[in-house]
Amino acid sequence: MKELQQWVRFVEAGRLSFGILEGERIAEFSGDIFDQPRATGRLVELRAVTLLAPCSPGKMVALWNNFHALGLKLGKEPPQHPLFFIKPPSCIIGPDEPIQRPTGYAGKIVFEGELGVVIGRRAKDVALADAAAHIFGYTCVNDVTAADVLNESPDFAQWCRAKSYDTFGCLGPAIVTGLDIDAARVSTRLDGALRQDYPLADMIMAPAELVSLLSFDMTLMPGDVIACGTSVGVGSIKAGSAVEVSITGLGSLTNVLAP
Amino acid sequence: MKELQQWVRFVEAGRLSFGILEGERIAEFSGDIFDQPRATGRLVELRAVTLLAPCSPGKMVALWNNFHALGLKLGKEPPQHPLFFIKPPSCIIGPDEPIQRPTGYAGKIVFEGELGVVIGRRAKDVALADAAAHIFGYTCVNDVTAADVLNESPDFAQWCRAKSYDTFGCLGPAIVTGLDIDAARVSTRLDGALRQDYPLADMIMAPAELVSLLSFDMTLMPGDVIACGTSVGVGSIKAGSAVEVSITGLGSLTNVLAP
Repeated sequence: MKELQQWVRFVEAGRLSFGILEGERIAEFSGDIFDQPRATGRLVELRAVTLLAPCSPGKMVALWNNFHALGLKLGKEPPQHPLFFIKPPSCIIGPDEPIQRPTGYAGKIVFEGELGVVIGRRAKDVALADAAAHIFGYTCVNDVTAADVLNESPDFAQWCRAKSYDTFGCLGPAIVTGLDIDAARVSTRLDGALRQDYPLADMIMAPAELVSLLSFDMTLMPGDVIACGTSVGVGSIKAGSAVEVSITGLGSLTNVLAP
Repeated sequence: MKELQQWVRFVEAGRLSFGILEGERIAEFSGDIFDQPRATGRLVELRAVTLLAPCSPGKMVALWNNFHALGLKLGKEPPQHPLFFIKPPSCIIGPDEPIQRPTGYAGKIVFEGELGVVIGRRAKDVALADAAAHIFGYTCVNDVTAADVLNESPDFAQWCRAKSYDTFGCLGPAIVTGLDIDAARVSTRLDGALRQDYPLADMIMAPAELVSLLSFDMTLMPGDVIACGTSVGVGSIKAGSAVEVSITGLGSLTNVLAP
């Protein structure tokens, strides 16, 4: 069992760094966060830095139809294998960075609060029993979607396009290690009003199973993120509104749709 | 107009490098291939190195239904905007690297010969008139597909999964700059037999238009690749068979499905 730690990435006076959040301070580390990082001994005031997305995924594998409650509502059978699309590195933003409306797109922009699984160790064809050891920790995800793009073409569902716009992959505030998330809940607030509040226990495929199954589809690399899919209660974001995704033990991720 | 050059990446005695192919030799460069690389003055014998994929894309944006001939055959209208899925960095291989059958998958594996557009300069919301300047060059792509996975679920077309398996993004042998590809043809041979032979002039959206339109969907970064979609003649690959994608002026990319 890993120690419970909150890893953050940040910019301090123009310099990119990372470390472990301890109350209002960050214990700085150097090296590779996923490969025996070393404490520098420096303590940095949280209020003096800008937090970034806590990792820089080479890919975000994002699930569709992974919660029983939403599947029931949509009238969809639970899948036999994770159904996913891919969000590219260019869409990732961190806590408090604004979500930007795509140039030329006037349609609906939707929030989806989700659990993010951060890979810690290269995972290829990993058995279920070994999968948990490949998870570094967990974070909050807002899988933002340009809803009107998704079914714009009658011939081709545009999952990747609708979800890959710059700033549509909100991640953070920290990667929390050593936390048992089985009993956790995902709560999403829109301008403070509770819009999603669902238990992770309702997941069709849980994190270790996802890591194992997805590792047969592609090699998962350290820093890659699996967005575990959302449940009921998603809705659209107006310009200037704040979306806050909170997960028990993982803190809160807030992003405003730029006015 | 850029000078006509063939850029390759290679490993020589365990060391990663890159340069310009000149007949049977490579003029080595150092630095960033996309940002004023410098000639080292060294000439390396081509036969002494192993060629890699000529770049290392952060994302491959791969098109569906971008050739009139294939659209007609499938009975699909030409799209108004590029229809695409994303292939992740983990699927990329170079010339002569074997394509690997995914563990546990016994179904059909299909080749798709395509033109690859390599981005040379960060592209966000780029007007059509400015788009060509963001293209570094062109290369050959084999967009390998696990055909039976694509429609395995009645609810969700699995484009990303079917096309993201490790080794399913074949790229190379070189990035050719300064070439007018309007009159070029894509030829795909399976164990020497011609299976695809189509003109790039039949593209629904040509490279500059693709770069412009896609740059409104996501920021394209140097080294990112747009796979322009395939046309008629795709087919399945048997274990041990070689697929050779050749494009006029761009050379040939050969990959064997591992026996």
